[in-house]
Amino acid sequence: MAIREQLIEYREGSTVLEGFFCHDDGRAAPLPAVLISHTWSGRDAFVEDKARRLAWHGFAAFALDMFGKGKRGNTTEECTALITPFMKDRALLARRITAALTAVRGLSQVDARRVAAMGYCFGGLCVLDLARSGADVRGVASVHGLLKPSGLPATRIRSKVLMLHGYDDPMAPPEDVLAVAKEMSAGGADWQLHAYGNTVHAFTNPHATDRSSGMAYDAAADRRSWQSLLQFLDEVLR
Amino acid sequence: MAIREQLIEYREGSTVLEGFFCHDDGRAAPLPAVLISHTWSGRDAFVEDKARRLAWHGFAAFALDMFGKGKRGNTTEECTALITPFMKDRALLARRITAALTAVRGLSQVDARRVAAMGYCFGGLCVLDLARSGADVRGVASVHGLLKPSGLPATRIRSKVLMLHGYDDPMAPPEDVLAVAKEMSAGGADWQLHAYGNTVHAFTNPHATDRSSGMAYDAAADRRSWQSLLQFLDEVLR
Repeated sequence: MAIREQLIEYREGSTVLEGFFCHDDGRAAPLPAVLISHTWSGRDAFVEDKARRLAWHGFAAFALDMFGKGKRGNTTEECTALITPFMKDRALLARRITAALTAVRGLSQVDARRVAAMGYCFGGLCVLDLARSGADVRGVASVHGLLKPSGLPATRIRSKVLMLHGYDDPMAPPEDVLAVAKEMSAGGADWQLHAYGNTVHAFTNPHATDRSSGMAYDAAADRRSWQSLLQFLDEVLR
Repeated sequence: MAIREQLIEYREGSTVLEGFFCHDDGRAAPLPAVLISHTWSGRDAFVEDKARRLAWHGFAAFALDMFGKGKRGNTTEECTALITPFMKDRALLARRITAALTAVRGLSQVDARRVAAMGYCFGGLCVLDLARSGADVRGVASVHGLLKPSGLPATRIRSKVLMLHGYDDPMAPPEDVLAVAKEMSAGGADWQLHAYGNTVHAFTNPHATDRSSGMAYDAAADRRSWQSLLQFLDEVLR
């Protein structure tokens, strides 16, 4: 068993993107694959760590890139600037994440029929939009994701959907939960939402420490959401 | 490994009750224990089956009795008559389920410090009321339970709480979900709610087949809720 890591360039239109791909090359390929969609900071160590964990678990994991090769945000201002074009143009967002799906399907180590996607915060929104686009992926999982509907024309949702949600997340208040539940049901999705009480945004991020700003790590929610995520991925990909 | 089953009489006030107790007597006692609270039909084969499954999993399981020895309902009218006194008098409900907790703690095979409770439908309400009473149980899990607050004075909730919920359950509509979330947070509970989309009441009951009445079995929700339940019990009892 050896985890192999690679950077992989791919494109959406004229934009060059760079994903982080890893898998256990001791396992017989092709492997079921999981796309991992990053937060507003860009494709960083946080999602690369998740990719390694999924590789140990037996999946091919691809930490995708929404922003462009090497683009990362370090301050709130930089991060806001990076996500703004996508928040304003959800069709662009959908094209960009679909490019990652196409890229991962083209890899020889990947079983193109068994692909799922997960994402954190802004990345949670991205994978929900992938499902909303009607993409043929087995499942999508949003972890403390933004839940706001895209406003794009409704499509039949073919992916199973799991939303792992801090109930006191100021970026996804109860009215957004009610709205997304309605939207997912109307789209015919097989959906689940796990809400964690007394839990705010960014509960899987150990560097989030400011509960008053609505962003704080929570060890129990981190552990429970990871368990639920693996269970979901095993259900949809094995 | 041999599962041992026993009927156990106990009392609440002058009412004689009869629980179904089972455990694996090949495992070293005392064992962590799980109370199982029945639906409005009374302590029937459905909860006894769950008790056996938990015994195989390594817990001592006690399918408790809310109604009185031998009392079971066979029709909607009979079942309604059986639960009505408890729905009208939630203090009676709390005393009745607390009697089961006391009984199971007195059993030599049980580790009195490691007790949790789970329940279905009306039984879900019962275990939530046990938590609401401030009882010192490690965790309570409601499966397609009624969620309505008890109206009794608020208490600090010491149990971890898991609610497994069909999002389209007509007996627990979105406004009840919002209300119970508020109540649990105010009580300081470590709570979670897993909502299953396009899923109605009684989703674990293979005999529930009338979706139009809002009661229908759902294989995916049954399987997912059982997984989440075992994970929760392992978390709180091991």
